Amino acid sequence: MFRRLVSRDEALQRIKQYVKLAALGVEEVGLRLAFGRVLAEDLVSPMDVPPFHRATMDGYAVKARNTFEASETSPKSLKVVGSVEVGETPTASLKDGEAVAVATGSALPEGADAVLPVEWTRKGENPNEILALRAVTSGENVMERGHDIKSGELVIKRGTKLNPRMLGVLSALGIARVKVYLKPKVAILSTGEELVEPGKPLTQGKIYDVNWITLYASVLEHGGEPKFLGIVEDDEEQIELALRQALEMADVVVTSGATSVGATDIMRNLANKLGRPGVIVDGVRMKPGKPTVIGVADGKPIFCLPGNPMSALIAFYNFVAPVLRAMAGLPPVRRRVVEAALSSRVLPASGRLTTIPVRLEERQGRLVAHPVFKASGAITALALADGYIEVPEGVKFLEAGEKVDVYLFEGEGKP
Amino acid sequence: MFRRLVSRDEALQRIKQYVKLAALGVEEVGLRLAFGRVLAEDLVSPMDVPPFHRATMDGYAVKARNTFEASETSPKSLKVVGSVEVGETPTASLKDGEAVAVATGSALPEGADAVLPVEWTRKGENPNEILALRAVTSGENVMERGHDIKSGELVIKRGTKLNPRMLGVLSALGIARVKVYLKPKVAILSTGEELVEPGKPLTQGKIYDVNWITLYASVLEHGGEPKFLGIVEDDEEQIELALRQALEMADVVVTSGATSVGATDIMRNLANKLGRPGVIVDGVRMKPGKPTVIGVADGKPIFCLPGNPMSALIAFYNFVAPVLRAMAGLPPVRRRVVEAALSSRVLPASGRLTTIPVRLEERQGRLVAHPVFKASGAITALALADGYIEVPEGVKFLEAGEKVDVYLFEGEGKP
Repeated sequence: MFRRLVSRDEALQRIKQYVKLAALGVEEVGLRLAFGRVLAEDLVSPMDVPPFHRATMDGYAVKARNTFEASETSPKSLKVVGSVEVGETPTASLKDGEAVAVATGSALPEGADAVLPVEWTRKGENPNEILALRAVTSGENVMERGHDIKSGELVIKRGTKLNPRMLGVLSALGIARVKVYLKPKVAILSTGEELVEPGKPLTQGKIYDVNWITLYASVLEHGGEPKFLGIVEDDEEQIELALRQALEMADVVVTSGATSVGATDIMRNLANKLGRPGVIVDGVRMKPGKPTVIGVADGKPIFCLPGNPMSALIAFYNFVAPVLRAMAGLPPVRRRVVEAALSSRVLPASGRLTTIPVRLEERQGRLVAHPVFKASGAITALALADGYIEVPEGVKFLEAGEKVDVYLFEGEGKP
Repeated sequence: MFRRLVSRDEALQRIKQYVKLAALGVEEVGLRLAFGRVLAEDLVSPMDVPPFHRATMDGYAVKARNTFEASETSPKSLKVVGSVEVGETPTASLKDGEAVAVATGSALPEGADAVLPVEWTRKGENPNEILALRAVTSGENVMERGHDIKSGELVIKRGTKLNPRMLGVLSALGIARVKVYLKPKVAILSTGEELVEPGKPLTQGKIYDVNWITLYASVLEHGGEPKFLGIVEDDEEQIELALRQALEMADVVVTSGATSVGATDIMRNLANKLGRPGVIVDGVRMKPGKPTVIGVADGKPIFCLPGNPMSALIAFYNFVAPVLRAMAGLPPVRRRVVEAALSSRVLPASGRLTTIPVRLEERQGRLVAHPVFKASGAITALALADGYIEVPEGVKFLEAGEKVDVYLFEGEGKP
């Protein structure tokens, strides 16, 4: 059906056509767990903030009109009839000529409409008498109920990634639990006779698996919930068993390896066998990443990435990350770009989008990009590269010194 | 001892003097949990990578000298004595005139020093005979053992924050668990008669607590492990009990609120009572953040932050974040800065470092910073502001249109 190499854009187009790129669902979590999650509802305030007329100075709650024309030379007498501590419920209501002692944050008693700051008062002659030395106007030194946020007001929009400050706003509204988008569950499989999990002994001819953990962490980085299902032998029955298990428990399946000539056939056959429509991408005109196979089994994407670690990672960035982010309700990744001058001539693969990892060096205040050319399968390239450049299909070469955009590997990531 | 307002820099200096700003300790974790953690050891490779001479082409392992001067017209005959599949241990060693079939990734059998690609061969007349149509040189199409990484080589330096690619490198070396720095445990307390936890009913005069969660998430953001101990009444005995519990279980204590006139005395008294040297900072010449009290009890810092949410957050960024990062082995925070033009004149507080939250707007391709002036304690400022500007002590005003550096709130953060 699709046994023809396609461009990266065509591959993305096919993914869009066969996979629903939308949030998978919603769960409710407490605020502690909501940090970094994506809000799945328009958050409308259930209350006024502040929830009462609130004093913004230490002093006396008064009727402003009772201080009219008060001055040092002609002070107005007021009778202190009580006090409202911060956090207390005011009981009595205020009558003309009365004052109630309040502190910053206190609720105003009924009948009061202003706060006379303590420094504008003096003790009177009678017990409980104070003298207002200046006038205040209605509303002065008071934050009105709902001034900050009104009940029914839209406070945070659906699709917002919750940061510490927004969580503070939710808490201010008394909201202890919020609806956030589900994280897509991602099953990760490694295939290859030669692969051994780290921590286990290595016999001659075997190597330690790399992709399981780079993919695992990359899934975390893009809002997914990874589950590593282990290393599976290059055996059709074994892989089928593992894939069926993966499809049962996950929303997205990511495999790496088994894209050598015979093994690709296995993945292709299985992707076609496990659900409709089967293989939608069978090889991409990119280097690295060419032997990427993408299948869809009844709506769930199966990404079969190459075994070479750098190839697997580049294919992940291009195809898996956008799908995970859409399913998690996250915005498309914002790749951080810096401009740098190439340190040497680059010959991209003919007729393929070529991705070249580069190491950045600052030289006399300017950035230089050194291509990290390594033998196929070399894993030090992973550690050495700071980012990568992309050379479009059809470009024959880039000269040394040429300015290029370097996409930085870092930029997303955990604290 | 320290009852004098100090500048931000003096406050930081005192923290440096009385708190050990170094990693707290080391724990060993599996690779899945090592993502985003800081490596606590120089990682030296325990093995060669690849761990064997590895074929980089499909073909035949040979002795290069046996293909000397081979050509289409004068091919050299070789006897295929076996094969080595990928992941298999080679058994026999190769003698002169022999070849062993290998695939990309296979280990070379002993005695072989090159791989003759399959496309440079032809079947011979005898069973098991192949003809070499070209010569290969020693080492051709072979990645030598240790070519990528040598045993004993320093691979990742202590202090490196582990990203997905580095985890891949560790896995390639067979390393399943790594030593990382401990996360500092941070106890968080809110104090204030008026505070209620979200989710609980609000009586008149009370408000919902904001700081517990902004501080909780900010601790996560800066590499700490937060534990919220609850809201404590403004009562010396209650607060002492809570602080003792906090000091027992945590490396750092952060409180907010209780910095009103009487309450500050409580925090100051307790900070002096709970351990040596007691209060080291008692008020800072900054706005907001002035009533910040910092104590040290036998090496453990106690940060008593103001109750106003924006003040608490600004004080956290300035004083708590650097301490947490040092204890977590993280590099100092890299604040992301953008340049913007002020939308209106700004009058900073006299003689104090003034922090002003701003909202950014793009206008004709240029950034405009709108100061978010809000009544004291307004929490919408938290949601509206994209960042903040700092006006140093001594600056009298900033004009509308003036260029300012805006420190973005976002930049750190979780995926």
